[in-house]
Amino acid sequence: MSNSAILLIHCPDQPGLVAQVTEFVHRNRGNIINLDQHVDRHVGQFFMRIEWDLDNFLIPPDKISDYFETLIGKAYGMEWQLHFTEKRPRMAIFVSKASHCLYDLLQRHGTGEFDCDITAIVSNHRQLEYIAERFDIPFHHIPINRENKTEQEEKTTALLRELNTDFIVLARYMQVLSDAFCRTWSYRVINIHHSFLPAFKGARPYERAFERGVKLIGATSHYVTADLDEGPIIAQSVEPVSHHHTVDDLKRIGKDVEKRVLSQAVYLQLRHLVLPFGNRTIIFN
Amino acid sequence: MSNSAILLIHCPDQPGLVAQVTEFVHRNRGNIINLDQHVDRHVGQFFMRIEWDLDNFLIPPDKISDYFETLIGKAYGMEWQLHFTEKRPRMAIFVSKASHCLYDLLQRHGTGEFDCDITAIVSNHRQLEYIAERFDIPFHHIPINRENKTEQEEKTTALLRELNTDFIVLARYMQVLSDAFCRTWSYRVINIHHSFLPAFKGARPYERAFERGVKLIGATSHYVTADLDEGPIIAQSVEPVSHHHTVDDLKRIGKDVEKRVLSQAVYLQLRHLVLPFGNRTIIFN
Amino acid sequence: MSNSAILLIHCPDQPGLVAQVTEFVHRNRGNIINLDQHVDRHVGQFFMRIEWDLDNFLIPPDKISDYFETLIGKAYGMEWQLHFTEKRPRMAIFVSKASHCLYDLLQRHGTGEFDCDITAIVSNHRQLEYIAERFDIPFHHIPINRENKTEQEEKTTALLRELNTDFIVLARYMQVLSDAFCRTWSYRVINIHHSFLPAFKGARPYERAFERGVKLIGATSHYVTADLDEGPIIAQSVEPVSHHHTVDDLKRIGKDVEKRVLSQAVYLQLRHLVLPFGNRTIIFN
Amino acid sequence: MSNSAILLIHCPDQPGLVAQVTEFVHRNRGNIINLDQHVDRHVGQFFMRIEWDLDNFLIPPDKISDYFETLIGKAYGMEWQLHFTEKRPRMAIFVSKASHCLYDLLQRHGTGEFDCDITAIVSNHRQLEYIAERFDIPFHHIPINRENKTEQEEKTTALLRELNTDFIVLARYMQVLSDAFCRTWSYRVINIHHSFLPAFKGARPYERAFERGVKLIGATSHYVTADLDEGPIIAQSVEPVSHHHTVDDLKRIGKDVEKRVLSQAVYLQLRHLVLPFGNRTIIFN
Repeated sequence: MSNSAILLIHCPDQPGLVAQVTEFVHRNRGNIINLDQHVDRHVGQFFMRIEWDLDNFLIPPDKISDYFETLIGKAYGMEWQLHFTEKRPRMAIFVSKASHCLYDLLQRHGTGEFDCDITAIVSNHRQLEYIAERFDIPFHHIPINRENKTEQEEKTTALLRELNTDFIVLARYMQVLSDAFCRTWSYRVINIHHSFLPAFKGARPYERAFERGVKLIGATSHYVTADLDEGPIIAQSVEPVSHHHTVDDLKRIGKDVEKRVLSQAVYLQLRHLVLPFGNRTIIFN
Repeated sequence: MSNSAILLIHCPDQPGLVAQVTEFVHRNRGNIINLDQHVDRHVGQFFMRIEWDLDNFLIPPDKISDYFETLIGKAYGMEWQLHFTEKRPRMAIFVSKASHCLYDLLQRHGTGEFDCDITAIVSNHRQLEYIAERFDIPFHHIPINRENKTEQEEKTTALLRELNTDFIVLARYMQVLSDAFCRTWSYRVINIHHSFLPAFKGARPYERAFERGVKLIGATSHYVTADLDEGPIIAQSVEPVSHHHTVDDLKRIGKDVEKRVLSQAVYLQLRHLVLPFGNRTIIFN
Repeated sequence: MSNSAILLIHCPDQPGLVAQVTEFVHRNRGNIINLDQHVDRHVGQFFMRIEWDLDNFLIPPDKISDYFETLIGKAYGMEWQLHFTEKRPRMAIFVSKASHCLYDLLQRHGTGEFDCDITAIVSNHRQLEYIAERFDIPFHHIPINRENKTEQEEKTTALLRELNTDFIVLARYMQVLSDAFCRTWSYRVINIHHSFLPAFKGARPYERAFERGVKLIGATSHYVTADLDEGPIIAQSVEPVSHHHTVDDLKRIGKDVEKRVLSQAVYLQLRHLVLPFGNRTIIFN
Repeated sequence: MSNSAILLIHCPDQPGLVAQVTEFVHRNRGNIINLDQHVDRHVGQFFMRIEWDLDNFLIPPDKISDYFETLIGKAYGMEWQLHFTEKRPRMAIFVSKASHCLYDLLQRHGTGEFDCDITAIVSNHRQLEYIAERFDIPFHHIPINRENKTEQEEKTTALLRELNTDFIVLARYMQVLSDAFCRTWSYRVINIHHSFLPAFKGARPYERAFERGVKLIGATSHYVTADLDEGPIIAQSVEPVSHHHTVDDLKRIGKDVEKRVLSQAVYLQLRHLVLPFGNRTIIFN
């Protein structure tokens, strides 16, 4: 597969944005593979994702950032990211004791559905170490308590940086991350919450769903921010439940929704299809 | 169609309940058409719905209540309701200005999907009177404000009683019912809330869903209790949404979910398939 | 609401298409409101929908076609349609005896969800005439049998043309249209088939779904072509069913899916969001 | 967890069936945990699943079959199966080269969601042997071609019998089983077909779904019979797709549906919740 470039852009809406960007690609002999744009009139913002083939592109890959910023980005006040498809993203996975999301991620990685490197599995417990071993992924036991939290988080960040980690997936990791850690990895930590947010924020969502007598349960994947369960939502899904289901049944059914919704978010992240803006996300085609 | 009897039962769980009830029907030559039972171990309660053909049943319909209570109900501390399928339920509809749920109910009534009588359309506004006229249903304009609420609700109850109304459907009726009215019509008022409860309780759910950036919107039908949006849930459904959708789009998409979820609750109610218990509902097959 | 232009384009894929079209709009002071494009590499085709505000557009609306064809369309071998949002589409509805889809369409029209004119309700039976009267839409009884089919279809086409009808919706119309009629109204007749195509093509889909013991039933809206039930699919949806459901239950549940799926297709058609190509459809955002 | 008995019954519908069976359990001091029954009026058949606690049951487990047949089964012409919850079902898995369903089954087994023993993984290829090793499940390479099919199937049956295998799961096993094998394991082989049956029976369903331009793809789990893809359906599900998706995307999205639908069937089988009758299945609560 040949290398292509992906630009994710947002800026205040103004005339000519699409024309400028597509002209930049076209004039330099880039062939557009995908283009998706969105204007949010509510907030007056423009969002765009454009992917083009680099085979005949006149600007060398390592100069594209400079040229784009100089010729277009600066003039329109754009914030933008540039990615190359030949660069495999590098992902770390944080877990505690529940294995279903971890298994699901590893399986998708193993079958080639997730085209990425897994740099590390990090856990505050040792229970899932055997799974990491089965899949030959380095496992790091980094126990965290109230006293050592800052220190252990800094150690974790140092480790992940050394491993050139691009983003982190919390696969039912049962620790609240500090504000400092959230800032360091801003928009680069994806969490799965086991409810249909904003319903049942916080602890014990299945128990509370049972008590409320809901007829659907859900799960939500989102970027982690300092506000617990309040970050930009990437994906959500639900499953029907009934009076037949006990809390244990809800947990069992919920696991499937969790796996699906977390993996969907990871897939979108790996393909650079998500653009968070404020508390919302643009999900490109 | 021949007449059949439907018993909805609940009581503390104890051995022999199914055997006793089915034996009561069988011994008196009733042919069981449907039977569904549920035991909620969490609260130690037994729930049952049984429907049997009355063609050869030895006990005359007007004596079944007496016999059942004397022979079984009393001994097991049962609470139960008896319905006959030949008796068409009588439903009133409350509306304000939004027409989509009203149209949907009238259409299902008109095509025979809802086997019931509509005793009245009641509204605090006159905007939808023309729809009532189109469908030849009596329309009652009963304006309500802070001062006249008690009086107008009592007038409404008197009217509905005179019309032998069994239950009320709030088809996007934008008034909060008083505690007194809720008690009078306990478990006999079905509301549609335009969100996936318990998310976005209260006012402006679509606006708040938009602001939160959710990826699914929903609707919830439930029995009305004195606690706003806290009554037992009958049905819920959701539809996917994306960053492309404005608040107006959410409202448009939401209307479809509202119609579907409200009509599903009405259908279940008409067939005596719902048994509320505390804050939950048993939905029989 | 101000007037805007919508271009639906397809042509063989080639470099610079997006740049050319957006530049055409931008250079003439059109402000792009929506842009969605798609490249189908399988068939080497490019598809695009672009909508722009006409307020400051330098080319007068009645000249846009000429200019676009001369400056761009011809050079790239494009097939394209131009629509203006201020022109309300004009739709005819064909029915037989089943009322649920008709009611649903009329209700959405009545509440403003469908921004269009309904030119006529045409039927080979008189059963639903009263509904047309309720909603004040002209009803035309045009009975069709084997002998008079050609003549009656020609009469229908003449009538619809006189009424400036843009497209036709078959709302459970139980007649097979002739090849000639299909050609005349090519890609302008939308049908609802009461199964999840290609499963259960042809007659009695619910009976056959019951016999096969499926666990989901569905409906499909599609453009009508000379090949029965083989035209390009616009929308599909399903609902879960179980062994509890009789054929009549499947029909009842199916009606809801049919209404939803047909109305979704009509909505997309009214907003010029569908582009059929061969046997497939592009559904723009 | 204490031991309980599960009876799955079907017979011609006749009065008193529920009363007789519940009375049998009750009189002998069995406490009913679950009861679900269904009457199919279309074919005049009665279906029932009843589960009761054996703690105080007067009839010893190994005598229940005799007693039930003598006292009730024979008199009503019942066909029935008796299961005990303390007996872990024993399942074999057949695979070829695709790993996603295998991983999903092993993961659910590993996390305790599937309460069963896996007796063997059987494959006509060696590609997935490493997964069997990772999960410590015996792997048997049994290559099959036109010449050795009968022989190899007999060898497989002998192996599975020796391992006391109760049922077989075809987790994307790409061999057509012989009629003889299907008869031997009648209603004990569960397959996943990668389409929404009866659409796209046979080979290459995703390619054909793409060509037909469907808007939903699906998967179907069913019991295997001698008629390919025609056996009784256990579960079905779908996912939305669009013109954006290539055949490879359909396959990727489809894998998720396949895993879910196959695992749902296995779960139902393990809990003795499925009763096939002719070409349909009763799925109990």
